[in-house]
Amino acid sequence: MSAASRAKRNNPQIDVTVLEKTLDVSYSACGMPYNIADPARDMNDLVVRKADEFRTKNKINLMTGHMVNRIDTATKTVSGIIFSDIIALGSNSSVVNTDDTHQDVVNTCDARQDVVNTDDARQDFSYSYDKLLIATGATPVIPDLPGFDLPGVMPLKNLEQGRKIKAFIEKNNVQKAVIIGMGYIGLEMCEALRARSIQVTMVKPGSQFLPWMKPELADFVKQELDANGIKLCYGKIKKIEHQSSSKHTLSVVCENFTLDADMVIVASGVKPCSDLAIAAGLKVSVANSIAVDKTLKTSNDNIYAAGDCADAFNVVSGEKCWIPLALRANRAGWAVADNVCGIKTELQGVAGTAVFKMFDLQITRTGLSVKEALASGFDPVEVIIQTRSKAHGHPGSNTIHVAMTGDKRTGLLLGVQMVGKDGVAHRINAPAVALHAKMTVAEFAQTDLGYAPPFGPVWDPVLTAANQLLKKM
Amino acid sequence: MSAASRAKRNNPQIDVTVLEKTLDVSYSACGMPYNIADPARDMNDLVVRKADEFRTKNKINLMTGHMVNRIDTATKTVSGIIFSDIIALGSNSSVVNTDDTHQDVVNTCDARQDVVNTDDARQDFSYSYDKLLIATGATPVIPDLPGFDLPGVMPLKNLEQGRKIKAFIEKNNVQKAVIIGMGYIGLEMCEALRARSIQVTMVKPGSQFLPWMKPELADFVKQELDANGIKLCYGKIKKIEHQSSSKHTLSVVCENFTLDADMVIVASGVKPCSDLAIAAGLKVSVANSIAVDKTLKTSNDNIYAAGDCADAFNVVSGEKCWIPLALRANRAGWAVADNVCGIKTELQGVAGTAVFKMFDLQITRTGLSVKEALASGFDPVEVIIQTRSKAHGHPGSNTIHVAMTGDKRTGLLLGVQMVGKDGVAHRINAPAVALHAKMTVAEFAQTDLGYAPPFGPVWDPVLTAANQLLKKM
Repeated sequence: MSAASRAKRNNPQIDVTVLEKTLDVSYSACGMPYNIADPARDMNDLVVRKADEFRTKNKINLMTGHMVNRIDTATKTVSGIIFSDIIALGSNSSVVNTDDTHQDVVNTCDARQDVVNTDDARQDFSYSYDKLLIATGATPVIPDLPGFDLPGVMPLKNLEQGRKIKAFIEKNNVQKAVIIGMGYIGLEMCEALRARSIQVTMVKPGSQFLPWMKPELADFVKQELDANGIKLCYGKIKKIEHQSSSKHTLSVVCENFTLDADMVIVASGVKPCSDLAIAAGLKVSVANSIAVDKTLKTSNDNIYAAGDCADAFNVVSGEKCWIPLALRANRAGWAVADNVCGIKTELQGVAGTAVFKMFDLQITRTGLSVKEALASGFDPVEVIIQTRSKAHGHPGSNTIHVAMTGDKRTGLLLGVQMVGKDGVAHRINAPAVALHAKMTVAEFAQTDLGYAPPFGPVWDPVLTAANQLLKKM
Repeated sequence: MSAASRAKRNNPQIDVTVLEKTLDVSYSACGMPYNIADPARDMNDLVVRKADEFRTKNKINLMTGHMVNRIDTATKTVSGIIFSDIIALGSNSSVVNTDDTHQDVVNTCDARQDVVNTDDARQDFSYSYDKLLIATGATPVIPDLPGFDLPGVMPLKNLEQGRKIKAFIEKNNVQKAVIIGMGYIGLEMCEALRARSIQVTMVKPGSQFLPWMKPELADFVKQELDANGIKLCYGKIKKIEHQSSSKHTLSVVCENFTLDADMVIVASGVKPCSDLAIAAGLKVSVANSIAVDKTLKTSNDNIYAAGDCADAFNVVSGEKCWIPLALRANRAGWAVADNVCGIKTELQGVAGTAVFKMFDLQITRTGLSVKEALASGFDPVEVIIQTRSKAHGHPGSNTIHVAMTGDKRTGLLLGVQMVGKDGVAHRINAPAVALHAKMTVAEFAQTDLGYAPPFGPVWDPVLTAANQLLKKM
């Protein structure tokens, strides 16, 4: 929708059609855990703009309930199936769709995985294009194991899934939940579920908690989970079973233990929805994301890809990466609109900046971890420091932990990770900009960052880390 | 002290002598308003390290009560007067000095302005040097008008002045205060005095509130002052008088009005303490600050200057500037120590990043204002935007106002100013780093800043400002 709106702003004469499988076209996906946490808030509060607004105000030919299942690059057409009952739903004022018939359609954005249950709801469509944008996003990875289709076993990626989780909690008196996976979404859901007084256990295969994070920093995240009564279990997951005899209706069966639950959140990561692109012969790269150049063009001259389905250049390594985050998705949408309208735009790439909140903790990163730096051929040196979020003696100051990595050969800053309860989140942006500028650690250490006692020490934590790192380089 | 400590760390064999007029050698000057605000806190909480620690742990020959009044560059000696009674005070555990005899000595750091009242407290000293660092700081500008020496009329720059203000409030049942000046310190003192239930009126000559700030943004600062009951008066100040007949002992007489007060805080700015350097024939630049090169060397090969007494290069304009702030002072101290010890260090300069808190408001800037940009020969274009501190629909979100300036000719980012109640302070550091990297607005607009709903919208306010500014460039 970012691309469609911007294309119409660039050139009101351009004919823009959007084909969207679901009914939700513009919402804050990242806000879902915070909304689920609060029974007083409606899930539709997250809707930024309704489909009809795009139709009437932006003059976009927006077709909801349209699932594309084929791109024909030779004839420059896309074709697929219309779900007329979804469209009918869209014409009501309520857009909440809890009808089980459509569960599978809404759950996945990738045509090849969809199962359509009712033949009479089908109707074919076909559109021709001059330029095509694939913005199919990403979809949760659902382990191919028994029981992941049971009621109460739910992923969280799109708004419809958010509505289902929230409705499930409210209807089923959920007291015990298992979260499969320990990534951003799983960790944000911990806080949301605890806010609803739900007991939470997280489980994942393998044994490494937040593998991208320095173990010393990851330990603080674990401590915060522990302080909030979240249990962490590690073990191979074998299946999920329905329990009719127990107080709790589900059990997650792992190799050496079994976890009871009223609800299971599947948060084992996401993958790009690129099957449609692959079938059309487009090149893919990291994690099967659609390969795009700096203008967001795919291997086909008339096809662009943007958002969580597409790859990006990493500004630190110069290599392709797949980091599905919201800012890049928006920015890429705009860039496609500009390029299609003849305003040549190149995106330099991403630094991999990410931030999330978990209970009282702020957790953030930018650039490469030591492992990633090694893989990209750097000679990483790193330092971990502990400092304060406010000035010496200022009330409300808290500990900030900073891990910073530089390249011994070139002196370049490579990455920063931070954890703390106060003043962490926005602090990542200074080193993020330094990564874009390809600053050395020595150059970054000289930057003139703001200082006032209520907001930090004289030497900002990222500067202290840079000063310490310099000694090792 | 930063320079002295680092020199000893670099080379424990080096002979380091520090000559300090007062007893306080290492304290958080910027923390004084917050300390004054809180009757439960002791002013000595702001002391980071006591003089004796530097003597015993760092092996620094630290001479307090030593006021240098002459530098002889030919013989490479500094000479001055010892205040043996100040030294005696320093040997007590209490370092609070409220003895009126020393008031003038402690109030100013500049030898030429000092008046020594007691001859028997005097004793001469002389030290030779290989390399000399002048770190005399800055001193409050006291208008040359009648009554500014009355009891209860006080500036705030060094710790002793902070102690005096706090003691005065406590001893004199201060109910009404006038602050002369409306800069950082005056504004921070507003909050401190309101916290002590003191009625506050600010007064300054001229009519422009925060002249460096975009008027649209300055209006929000005024609104916050108004919401907290602070009155602003503009007019030429003629004198301060003692009132024996009134409930309030002081009156600030201005051209068209008179303000009653129990206490007057003089916060009309500071000036570099450079008289000693000027007398020694050293070059000075902006505002009479001591001119230094990137290695912090003055016009004399054996003399360095660092801290609020010295100038700096502005990384945006490339010109000399005088911006007396704590981070630069510390950094410059380190750089001098390194250069003196043979570790060649150059400081690239300052971006002019500053931040302060006033009641619930966070106010910050970096780089050049439009006026400064014009003066430096740029062709400034600017934009003012209003956005939110958190994501769409996220609770606790507040308005952030951003003014951003770019150069039409080169596309360079020139400066940013921000005002708001939530998430403003640390946000200035990303554009500050961009200024160091000489990024264009277009390049800055592409940076990958962190996003999570509790911490900001998908497009960080500084990115939204950059996107809007790009349209005008």
